[in-house]
Amino acid sequence: MAEKLRVGLLGYGTIGSGVIKLLTQSGLDIEKYVQLVKVADTDLERPREVKVDPALLTSDTEAVVRDPDIDVIVELIGGVEAAKKFVEMALDEGKDVVTANKYLISLYGDDLFERAAKTGARLLFEASVAGGVPIIQTLREGLASDRILSINAILNGTCNYILTRMEQKPGMDYEEAVAEAQARGFAEADPSLDISGMDTAQKISILIRKAFRTRILPEEIDIQGIMGVSNVDVQSAMEMGYRIKLLARVSREGDNLEVWVGPALIPAESILARVKNEFNAISIDSEAHHLQTYIGKGAGMLPTAGAVVGDLFTLLSHRNVPSIFAEKRLDLPALDRNDIRCRYYLRIIVRDQPGVLARISNALAEKNISIASVVQREDSPDPERGVPLVIITHETTVGAIAQAVLVINQEQVVLEPAHTIRIMDAL
Amino acid sequence: MAEKLRVGLLGYGTIGSGVIKLLTQSGLDIEKYVQLVKVADTDLERPREVKVDPALLTSDTEAVVRDPDIDVIVELIGGVEAAKKFVEMALDEGKDVVTANKYLISLYGDDLFERAAKTGARLLFEASVAGGVPIIQTLREGLASDRILSINAILNGTCNYILTRMEQKPGMDYEEAVAEAQARGFAEADPSLDISGMDTAQKISILIRKAFRTRILPEEIDIQGIMGVSNVDVQSAMEMGYRIKLLARVSREGDNLEVWVGPALIPAESILARVKNEFNAISIDSEAHHLQTYIGKGAGMLPTAGAVVGDLFTLLSHRNVPSIFAEKRLDLPALDRNDIRCRYYLRIIVRDQPGVLARISNALAEKNISIASVVQREDSPDPERGVPLVIITHETTVGAIAQAVLVINQEQVVLEPAHTIRIMDAL
Repeated sequence: MAEKLRVGLLGYGTIGSGVIKLLTQSGLDIEKYVQLVKVADTDLERPREVKVDPALLTSDTEAVVRDPDIDVIVELIGGVEAAKKFVEMALDEGKDVVTANKYLISLYGDDLFERAAKTGARLLFEASVAGGVPIIQTLREGLASDRILSINAILNGTCNYILTRMEQKPGMDYEEAVAEAQARGFAEADPSLDISGMDTAQKISILIRKAFRTRILPEEIDIQGIMGVSNVDVQSAMEMGYRIKLLARVSREGDNLEVWVGPALIPAESILARVKNEFNAISIDSEAHHLQTYIGKGAGMLPTAGAVVGDLFTLLSHRNVPSIFAEKRLDLPALDRNDIRCRYYLRIIVRDQPGVLARISNALAEKNISIASVVQREDSPDPERGVPLVIITHETTVGAIAQAVLVINQEQVVLEPAHTIRIMDAL
Repeated sequence: MAEKLRVGLLGYGTIGSGVIKLLTQSGLDIEKYVQLVKVADTDLERPREVKVDPALLTSDTEAVVRDPDIDVIVELIGGVEAAKKFVEMALDEGKDVVTANKYLISLYGDDLFERAAKTGARLLFEASVAGGVPIIQTLREGLASDRILSINAILNGTCNYILTRMEQKPGMDYEEAVAEAQARGFAEADPSLDISGMDTAQKISILIRKAFRTRILPEEIDIQGIMGVSNVDVQSAMEMGYRIKLLARVSREGDNLEVWVGPALIPAESILARVKNEFNAISIDSEAHHLQTYIGKGAGMLPTAGAVVGDLFTLLSHRNVPSIFAEKRLDLPALDRNDIRCRYYLRIIVRDQPGVLARISNALAEKNISIASVVQREDSPDPERGVPLVIITHETTVGAIAQAVLVINQEQVVLEPAHTIRIMDAL
């Protein structure tokens, strides 16, 4: 390895700063093998925590991508349009690309890989999913010879932080937890991409592509966010021996895949239930290796930058990134969401009056949903605001519960629409 | 990838059977890329669960190693002498070698790598540590550009199974748990390599070599086994909010390494405390990626065979296994065990009579060990057999506690020697 890998960095934000730090100010061995040649950003005035030699800075992103003295483009612009344009340009030039852009890879990964193949360029994206653990590499190499059976994952640090705080502080409601996450830098000013579950869907879409050789776009996934999860839900779950996590799940069911993203009650004793704050976790079951769980930070300057630098190391070490198995698409069909089976948690705010439970249990019985337990919680001191009724069902389908909820929500005794959360006992 | 990788398998035992199954009867893609050419074992008569084409079988191991039609030797003989001889022979012939042999790699890894370098052969050993998770690959590649700060790991499935059962069943003592582990196939007829901590020391020795570029032989490690752990210890730990795990620890302390293997009380809330039965776990803290935990099965036919097959995939995919960073030895010196600091759990079986506590606390005070709490447990109905006294100390050194215990054990009121277990609050 005589010559250094010459890197052009696009995007001098948080993660870009981390990459600059690791490549120029860390004392790590990687400094000897990689040379940072240029750093492009449209805003060069903003103050940054990590400094860089001003001679490297430029606002001309295209010039960096076209620079013949650069071997690798690290794309940390984020978003899709500009990022896509410059990544395509780099691949067309035959430059290798390392990106942290989950949005780009989940939507356009297949096109970009085809493009890269034409010029022999390589495209790596470890930092796009759970930066703190090299999960993409593990799927690409260590597990590539195995058959993956299922993945259950916590992929969004913001949501996990919010749910952890609601667990730790009885009475802390969703809005308060979001505000705290923002104050502590764990949530964006506009956290909607995270709390809607869309960020998680983009990440599981990438894992599905790798692990099941199947292309399911984020918008094709059944997504439920955490916006409707209240402190009553979190505390009720705890009393019943569960924790609520925003889960992404994909599971091989015969020749189909069960795929969804949503909050779920998981057993308090399970390892995933112990994954707290901004941590991510990926539990993989596979035919040979059996159950494995990978836990690490899902966000933050250094863990994500560490993943980018890990990809640079891969480029240094390997002429080819393995492809002998991974590139043949299987495209397993996704199960109809309405047919997916599980137990359910329902929380309904109802008037505290006789006959309420009869009406609701009738609505469930009509859809063949059988009730495992009911607790009427006395959390509200104000009868006008109603009381929360918590119902646990036996196994049913997503379709049946959705139909029952439509009926329940029309009852006059129901003051707030029913909120439903999946129960995953087998985790 | 036109030609298949031609494999000669040495050792038709449990893991060998798993490799045969994955390579010839699994339907996995790897079957298309790998051809099993020969299977050598000294005993071909013993009945096996997994069958193999009899034409492949031979008792002439050396002929397999010398066979010019074979590219890769998979060594699953175990032990050291024969395994070493055949691995050396294969490497001298320029054949790649995949091994699950932790004993061999921990003792002779450096020599074998030197030998391999001379002929350009490659030597892979993923299955030697925590078969169910590709941790060696992760250290070799994904984390190779990072600086590892510490590893805390549960590396022996037998011990973890035994300790888990003692947790779950109050009153189940060590011998009973071992017998159950043997009956269920989680412990060997002679489990001494596992319960003494030696197996764990061999594995952490390999991880230290990879993660800290330092060679510490298993016999140089301070090892405490789980033989002295009683049900009183396990249950007392639980009452205090801990679990007992057989831990391997290596941590960078300035320019030194703190290294030891032994049972430890770890917080019940920690992820490692949730790792149960035959599972292994490796928690790694590093400068860029921060804290990561890798959990998977540490034993069993398929997880270990899966690791072997994963190494075959690596051989198929990469001409070179990365070495640009990993091969320069740093050889950080190990801290003197007597200087290592931690809190301690002491359990002493004493006569139930006045003055006992005074004598023991004097012995501790003389070594400047300060007591955080004392519980005299009334577990024994028979006063002749004494009662367990449980003492938790504030932070002290391993040396001080060892000296205090020498004094305590000479007291006439002490019926059974004091048993000491480290407390690791920060996990």
